[in-house]
Amino acid sequence: MFFRKNPFGGQYTIFCGLDEVLKYLAHFKFSATDIEYLKSTDSLSQCEDGFFDDYLANLDCSEVSVRSMKQGSIAFPRVPLLVISGPLGVTQLLETALLNLVNFPSLLATNASRMVEAARVTTVNGKAPSCLEFGLRRAQGPDGGFTASKYAIVGGFDATAHVLAGKLLGVPIRGTHAHSFVMSFSSLDEVKGMTVNKKGTSDAVELLPLVIKYRKSFGNHWQKTHDGELAAFISYGIAFPDGFLCLIDTYDTVSIGLKNFILVALALNDIGYVPRGVRLDSGDLAALSLKCSKVFKDLAKQTKRDFFKNLDIVASNNINESTLDAMNKNGHAISVFGIGTHLVTCQAQPALGCVYKLVQLNNISRIKLSNDLVKVLIPSCKNVYRLYGKDGWPIGDLMVDSEEPEPTIDSRIMCRNPYKKKDYISVKPCRVEKLHTVVWDKNKGVTIDIPSVDESKKYVLEQKKAMLPGVIALKNPKEHKVYVSDKLFEELHRMWNSCQQV
Amino acid sequence: MFFRKNPFGGQYTIFCGLDEVLKYLAHFKFSATDIEYLKSTDSLSQCEDGFFDDYLANLDCSEVSVRSMKQGSIAFPRVPLLVISGPLGVTQLLETALLNLVNFPSLLATNASRMVEAARVTTVNGKAPSCLEFGLRRAQGPDGGFTASKYAIVGGFDATAHVLAGKLLGVPIRGTHAHSFVMSFSSLDEVKGMTVNKKGTSDAVELLPLVIKYRKSFGNHWQKTHDGELAAFISYGIAFPDGFLCLIDTYDTVSIGLKNFILVALALNDIGYVPRGVRLDSGDLAALSLKCSKVFKDLAKQTKRDFFKNLDIVASNNINESTLDAMNKNGHAISVFGIGTHLVTCQAQPALGCVYKLVQLNNISRIKLSNDLVKVLIPSCKNVYRLYGKDGWPIGDLMVDSEEPEPTIDSRIMCRNPYKKKDYISVKPCRVEKLHTVVWDKNKGVTIDIPSVDESKKYVLEQKKAMLPGVIALKNPKEHKVYVSDKLFEELHRMWNSCQQV
Repeated sequence: MFFRKNPFGGQYTIFCGLDEVLKYLAHFKFSATDIEYLKSTDSLSQCEDGFFDDYLANLDCSEVSVRSMKQGSIAFPRVPLLVISGPLGVTQLLETALLNLVNFPSLLATNASRMVEAARVTTVNGKAPSCLEFGLRRAQGPDGGFTASKYAIVGGFDATAHVLAGKLLGVPIRGTHAHSFVMSFSSLDEVKGMTVNKKGTSDAVELLPLVIKYRKSFGNHWQKTHDGELAAFISYGIAFPDGFLCLIDTYDTVSIGLKNFILVALALNDIGYVPRGVRLDSGDLAALSLKCSKVFKDLAKQTKRDFFKNLDIVASNNINESTLDAMNKNGHAISVFGIGTHLVTCQAQPALGCVYKLVQLNNISRIKLSNDLVKVLIPSCKNVYRLYGKDGWPIGDLMVDSEEPEPTIDSRIMCRNPYKKKDYISVKPCRVEKLHTVVWDKNKGVTIDIPSVDESKKYVLEQKKAMLPGVIALKNPKEHKVYVSDKLFEELHRMWNSCQQV
Repeated sequence: MFFRKNPFGGQYTIFCGLDEVLKYLAHFKFSATDIEYLKSTDSLSQCEDGFFDDYLANLDCSEVSVRSMKQGSIAFPRVPLLVISGPLGVTQLLETALLNLVNFPSLLATNASRMVEAARVTTVNGKAPSCLEFGLRRAQGPDGGFTASKYAIVGGFDATAHVLAGKLLGVPIRGTHAHSFVMSFSSLDEVKGMTVNKKGTSDAVELLPLVIKYRKSFGNHWQKTHDGELAAFISYGIAFPDGFLCLIDTYDTVSIGLKNFILVALALNDIGYVPRGVRLDSGDLAALSLKCSKVFKDLAKQTKRDFFKNLDIVASNNINESTLDAMNKNGHAISVFGIGTHLVTCQAQPALGCVYKLVQLNNISRIKLSNDLVKVLIPSCKNVYRLYGKDGWPIGDLMVDSEEPEPTIDSRIMCRNPYKKKDYISVKPCRVEKLHTVVWDKNKGVTIDIPSVDESKKYVLEQKKAMLPGVIALKNPKEHKVYVSDKLFEELHRMWNSCQQV
């Protein structure tokens, strides 16, 4: 299984989905009702009973072996992510399921990784902004949303607003309140008499009078900042005094929401709490963030309250790689990005084209031709090595026939462009990393610990650090070369020629 | 719940997902482990025990009521798809789940409907081409793929290659063999001695000699048409003599695959079977289909075998609305389209922007403003009616406050553009169709039969026929107008003004 082109115009792909592949292999089985259904279909009406009752009923992955890259590996075009060996029937049946389990997770993790890189270009208050996954409502159903949340974290996102993913995967959850929460309040009467304890004490304090005091002190422009929204913020501050972060765009971000936030933030701070920040969800996010940041900085001076310097400005609403890019260019003060639609739908390229091809049968190589060069299959069962140079950076990936000896640091190795005879290099690597390990053994089943979200996320970070920065770059990235051995090159061209002679 | 803009540059949207919404409402419940998890989160660490153990533990949808359009309805911007009423807490908790369950199904069904329309522009052998869903491998995980298969059928696709969807939904399944099946054969020796019974008899006939006889009779160009592929087709013909449809692009479509298909087709026909056709999966699909069709027509004359006139030409590989459009322009002979990636990822627009907004609380209307006109919320709980004119075609949809009387055919009704004071019409409709029915009742739960795939698919067809053809058109479609009543218009502008005065 491999892909032919890195997504999103980039030069790398993060391999994910291995965890689900292993679970699938372990549970692969036709149930009695599956077989009953298949017997009833027109397509299979000509099959013998033995096909169903002997073959399908007893079929599982106990004769299959699988080698794989580690989940979270950085992978490149044409390099096998997984190598599946076993009886022809069952290995053909695995095709669609395995592609389904690898394509979207790998695409999503790669998308997340790129968005995190884009988000971290601008530092805000000396820190790189963090990224939250906000996409459940736009994903392909509940499970599509769950898959997206999982691999967004693996790809580098800091947390998700998908609470079930938090529960089932143990990943951090973060979110804010909804517009509907704000809209459910219409008058300050609704929060009259509501109290919150002074931080760390059991002194109950009514918040409204404190807020009203500040409102009066700020002059005319602050007298009519939508009482409903102000009541909502007061109510929210009373419920979550330690987590006071307000969505401020329900009526108008700067003239209403920002002011209401400040009033309640000051009141909460008076009784010992440290407000967290604001969320922008519409309009020109970069410009609004700068505006809010300026107001907060001025207030920090005016009021001598340091919390104003450290407030988070969360932004969401149709954020993608190119809007992040534009915001970086023009400047912004956003410390947290909430990214939904463009993350989970991978809008910039909604599918990764992994394919699953027969390359060898009974020890004989197989090829598939195409008028499109990139679609000509490289035959044979392969081993893959990442070769490193003196400077510690990768030189490229080398595919060799699995019958060939492992490349070593002691000898020169010929590395060839599979499609161009004259494009080759001779390399003496300083380090050779074998990229595949056996993950499913026909006798033992799963041979590794199923990779966890945490472990996979860490490995993505390691892998990104180990790559030449140019390869990971979002703009004008450099190609990490994929080579084949002399033997594979010869095999490919021998078979190609013999097919073309027919 | 409503959306603001029709997807894919069109003027209509098919509402789907109601079946899953109803199941979700019926099962909405916080389990003991959910509550345990929520108690453990930082976000909720300040909540009282009673919130978890009394409120959440006992929360369900037994105080919620839901009105909805029928699944498969054609829907328009700003018209509520669902109207949810109930206690504020639970109805806010439903937001993300309900959006998740409606957004993707509605988008997918709309995408499928448009692709079916585009596919049916050109008739082939006097029939409109059919459409098969081929997208499982590129969908968002197994469940994303299942959702896609289901609503593709609802939107008008004829069948799916997703066998589990066939089993669980009872929808038709269709597919072909894989490239890997073809590549698993390398020599004619592999099919030597293999027999198939003459149609309707128990006379076992060896197929290979019949094929070889035809190969010889066709002259030089036919002697070396890749023996491996020819063996694969012979093997397939023996296994499925009544379903003989071959994927012919593994080595070369016209010079190899097409010839191999013809040889086996003739042999199978000699013993009473009617071959089905070929599948193209790469290259210029339209041009290749015309080439194949011409060869088949010539052969029908030459060999006097009528089956050649009726062969299906199935095409797949990155088909979308615009490639269909181009093929229609230039001509093609494709009778079956297999559409995968672009269907299930909705590549042209991977998300529908349904939103879920608070419009009324304790019988008082709520509004949310925005600098973006289209994002200004129309307040109040609404009823929606489709008004029909004398000619039987719809005039538009009219939203009225749910306190207002139902519009009738006896009186003139003022229909207003919600945002433009001077844009209105006065209408005396010949028919008034109420678009919402109660689907979930706080006392009874689900009040309708959960809509089946079949029923929903039929309703989509009915609805499309009931719309002015211009509204459904793929190119330069006409707008189906959405109006508000006088009362709603006044309410919107009264609230808008009062907010802007702050």
